[in-house]
Amino acid sequence: MEGTIRCSANYVPLTPISFLERSAVVYRERLSLVYGDHVKFTWQQTRDRSVKLASSLVTRFQISHGDVVAVLAPNIPEMYELHFAVPMAGSVLCNLNIRHPSKMVSTLLKHSNAKLIFVDYEFVHIAKGAIEIISRSTSSVPQLILISDSSKLSVPPTPDILDYESLLEMGSLDFEIRRPKDECDPIAVNYTSGTTSSPKGVVCNHRGAYLNSLAVVLLNEMPSMPVHLWVVPMFHCNGWCMIWGMAAQGGTNVCLRKVTAKGIFESISRHKVTHMGGAPTILNMIVNAPASERIPLPGKVVVKTGGAPPPSQVVFSMEKLGFDVYHSYGLTETYGPGIVCTWKPEWDSLPLETRAKIKSRQGLNHIGMEEVDVKDPVTMKSVPWDAKTMGEVMFRGNTVMNGYLKDTKATQDAFKDGWFRSGDLGVRHSDGYIELKDRSKDIIISGGENISTIEVESVLFRHQAVLEAAVVGRPDDHWGETPCAFVKLKEGYKLDGDDIIAYCRDNLPHYMAPRTVVFEELPKTSTGKIQKFVLREKAKALGNDLAKGKSKL
Amino acid sequence: MEGTIRCSANYVPLTPISFLERSAVVYRERLSLVYGDHVKFTWQQTRDRSVKLASSLVTRFQISHGDVVAVLAPNIPEMYELHFAVPMAGSVLCNLNIRHPSKMVSTLLKHSNAKLIFVDYEFVHIAKGAIEIISRSTSSVPQLILISDSSKLSVPPTPDILDYESLLEMGSLDFEIRRPKDECDPIAVNYTSGTTSSPKGVVCNHRGAYLNSLAVVLLNEMPSMPVHLWVVPMFHCNGWCMIWGMAAQGGTNVCLRKVTAKGIFESISRHKVTHMGGAPTILNMIVNAPASERIPLPGKVVVKTGGAPPPSQVVFSMEKLGFDVYHSYGLTETYGPGIVCTWKPEWDSLPLETRAKIKSRQGLNHIGMEEVDVKDPVTMKSVPWDAKTMGEVMFRGNTVMNGYLKDTKATQDAFKDGWFRSGDLGVRHSDGYIELKDRSKDIIISGGENISTIEVESVLFRHQAVLEAAVVGRPDDHWGETPCAFVKLKEGYKLDGDDIIAYCRDNLPHYMAPRTVVFEELPKTSTGKIQKFVLREKAKALGNDLAKGKSKL
Repeated sequence: MEGTIRCSANYVPLTPISFLERSAVVYRERLSLVYGDHVKFTWQQTRDRSVKLASSLVTRFQISHGDVVAVLAPNIPEMYELHFAVPMAGSVLCNLNIRHPSKMVSTLLKHSNAKLIFVDYEFVHIAKGAIEIISRSTSSVPQLILISDSSKLSVPPTPDILDYESLLEMGSLDFEIRRPKDECDPIAVNYTSGTTSSPKGVVCNHRGAYLNSLAVVLLNEMPSMPVHLWVVPMFHCNGWCMIWGMAAQGGTNVCLRKVTAKGIFESISRHKVTHMGGAPTILNMIVNAPASERIPLPGKVVVKTGGAPPPSQVVFSMEKLGFDVYHSYGLTETYGPGIVCTWKPEWDSLPLETRAKIKSRQGLNHIGMEEVDVKDPVTMKSVPWDAKTMGEVMFRGNTVMNGYLKDTKATQDAFKDGWFRSGDLGVRHSDGYIELKDRSKDIIISGGENISTIEVESVLFRHQAVLEAAVVGRPDDHWGETPCAFVKLKEGYKLDGDDIIAYCRDNLPHYMAPRTVVFEELPKTSTGKIQKFVLREKAKALGNDLAKGKSKL
Repeated sequence: MEGTIRCSANYVPLTPISFLERSAVVYRERLSLVYGDHVKFTWQQTRDRSVKLASSLVTRFQISHGDVVAVLAPNIPEMYELHFAVPMAGSVLCNLNIRHPSKMVSTLLKHSNAKLIFVDYEFVHIAKGAIEIISRSTSSVPQLILISDSSKLSVPPTPDILDYESLLEMGSLDFEIRRPKDECDPIAVNYTSGTTSSPKGVVCNHRGAYLNSLAVVLLNEMPSMPVHLWVVPMFHCNGWCMIWGMAAQGGTNVCLRKVTAKGIFESISRHKVTHMGGAPTILNMIVNAPASERIPLPGKVVVKTGGAPPPSQVVFSMEKLGFDVYHSYGLTETYGPGIVCTWKPEWDSLPLETRAKIKSRQGLNHIGMEEVDVKDPVTMKSVPWDAKTMGEVMFRGNTVMNGYLKDTKATQDAFKDGWFRSGDLGVRHSDGYIELKDRSKDIIISGGENISTIEVESVLFRHQAVLEAAVVGRPDDHWGETPCAFVKLKEGYKLDGDDIIAYCRDNLPHYMAPRTVVFEELPKTSTGKIQKFVLREKAKALGNDLAKGKSKL
């Protein structure tokens, strides 16, 4: 309109860097990070340390716009700072999974073309192994920077490797922060977590990170100055965007190197934690903690869960302990949480079972995600809201990734017809809420019937003896596939496969009940997701189920 | 980065329209609007009604991208709907102040080139008068559309004027919403409220509206599904952006045509209001309500106040009644609230007086505003954080206006050196918090000393007999200016000017105490701000204060 101007007074590219800059003033003297007995920082310190580190990256390593800086570290203060320092240097943070072996780390370092890798002391052998592998084929290897554990004052700096603190101390506070020129410039590359066997490099941008951070603050009903316990790995979707969200709200981040039920209860009690997050397996760990490790909560603790639908028994038990569980769902491609099961007060008076069923639904798009729908992936028609018709869950919005690094084909496939295709299958209930039924590659097709492995698993979880369970398809000449359950029992319980099968047949249509039950420890990703591709391999190795299976129907 | 794409799957222009689209699904059956005894809408209805109205605007009036649609209405459901329907038609909403006379309305309609004007039945005579004035000089007059009061079922439609409901009913739900092509496209023109005598057309855009709405939700610590009582006029900075913010959070809007203490208490009690807003004059009205009109609050009510610093006595009294007062500050040019006095828990234990002093500070930028500073307007140097050195409050960020409509010169002046210059004078305390001292044009310069009229007023407010007070400069041949107080006493109190002057001299440096006291009703804008320019004219008319003034120092 006539008379108006766009200039630096009224247009600033969106970036989570702004959250830290603001909190460094508004919450300057308040605690940003606490870790162990010795480490405490204020928001002003966190900002200043991030700026100094950014300055060192630029002056010592000539890091320039768009360069990739990798990190291999658990939930420690340095990992938090790197999420600001690396973008402040104009560069892109590549979060590596601390469970990866050297081989995988070398693949990802090469793929992302990382110039530097920051490595926590516990994982130096992995990083060194990876660099050794890379050096066999090229002379351009990433520079390793060691993060000594700042909580252990006795760890001496290693003379032959540059140390995080030394590098930071070389930095200058006069450094001019390199904000993104375009807010859609990349801020991070996160490799998909490995529920499939081939990680892809998901590129996220400043705008999406800014918007998803505010969305996760809002969907967690997080007021200003919360106290957040770090259980969700920070390397996983940048801690479900809560790293940046906490800077927005000026809260206190409680870091935890190793996740144990004891550590969780102690941290909550000691720091008066108000918020935390964790996959259902973490919730399971909490509710099954021995009485000796439990400490009564100092107040209400809001827990966001996701990554897999939380079994209703686990939700009940958590709420009995005083936790308030929010269930959200998303993917690395949606910056972590993309939809949330918004709880309505009118549901409070429903019977326990009904409430748990609703809570295990994935729900609807949060405020940062423009649209979510369940569609036929071929015709792109929306499925009816009948709680039955399955389709693929698809997203549109500013909190969907830029694409897959160096894989235009995969990006185009993922964005076909203008929607991001999640690969997850779900239905819509009459109120519009989405319920996931399965990953499209996890679903079992048996005798022409679709079997939702999630549905079978949720029945297994209701059995009092079952600690963990996962169901995959086992090849079958007659049926195509039959359900095969992998189960871990709680301590002190003894059951055999037939007990489990009989129980499932009592609670499910017969064709959905497992035909095979294997008792064992379940393989998981570092974010607590069960690695179904590993189980599928095992089920395949069991061979054809024909003889045994047929007699049971 | 290689492999990435920008497309409709991962980029959507930011607009508050998205809030309504989402709430229409997530909160579909929940109440969006209640008004009087008969009017209730759900979020799905509000969305559908807005879409139908937008469709009618396009098909019946050929409203096209960027056209201006004006509205003259109090806080009624139609006013709320228009804040979505007009942008959905791709057009720009021009909010008119319901206290303006026909002459001013005609000026603003002409200046904004409004194609249509929606008018509440109570203000039809004003609008008709304005159109009559316009028709004298041109044949292109805006079309008038009547809003009958939907709460009064008996009001018959007027046959000669097109009616809001009839127009809406002609609309189609199949209408394709016209989202902004560029998120910096204008969404509204709001004329400055008239604390100065010449309103300017402040152009706001979709991006700023989106971001400021989320910021006001966060600064009010507003959870999802709040119940908001409409006391702040919706025409004032789009209800401080809370119109859109409420759609983001899926809350219930309680509409109120006339603001009275009785109406406020009744609405809070009846609808279990959780949030409201109001200028300090409204807070004053609440705390001075007769006991017969007071109803105990059903729960904690969060009140955001702004427009002027809330006197500490008023804050105390509000908190005693169970209100939780947040103080924020901004201008029409910053979409309403731009900074907020974030309250720190460590202040809870401070003495009452200290707490009130802190609470009356304006604070620091909220999450949507990039930066705020207090600067020397000539050198652009930041003032020291000494609580003494005055400078001009300046803003930078996405929640600063596009500029002044058809006034490039004023826009350029306002954005000189890349900062929006507020025209307000303030200091910074040692913790960075900003405290306003005065509008640059309100400050009194007496014998070379700057006198903050806000400081003098806050002393006046502490006097138990004073209901309202405002201080302006009175011309003086010797001193240049001297402070002149306009005061309204509470009922039942009798004081004369000398009592007030003596009291002020006991509580202020002598040069700051008023030399003249006038007892009268204070002139206010419709948003409850005192019109100091009117008082300055009155003070000028009192003539030179020389003879009386000199003897008193």
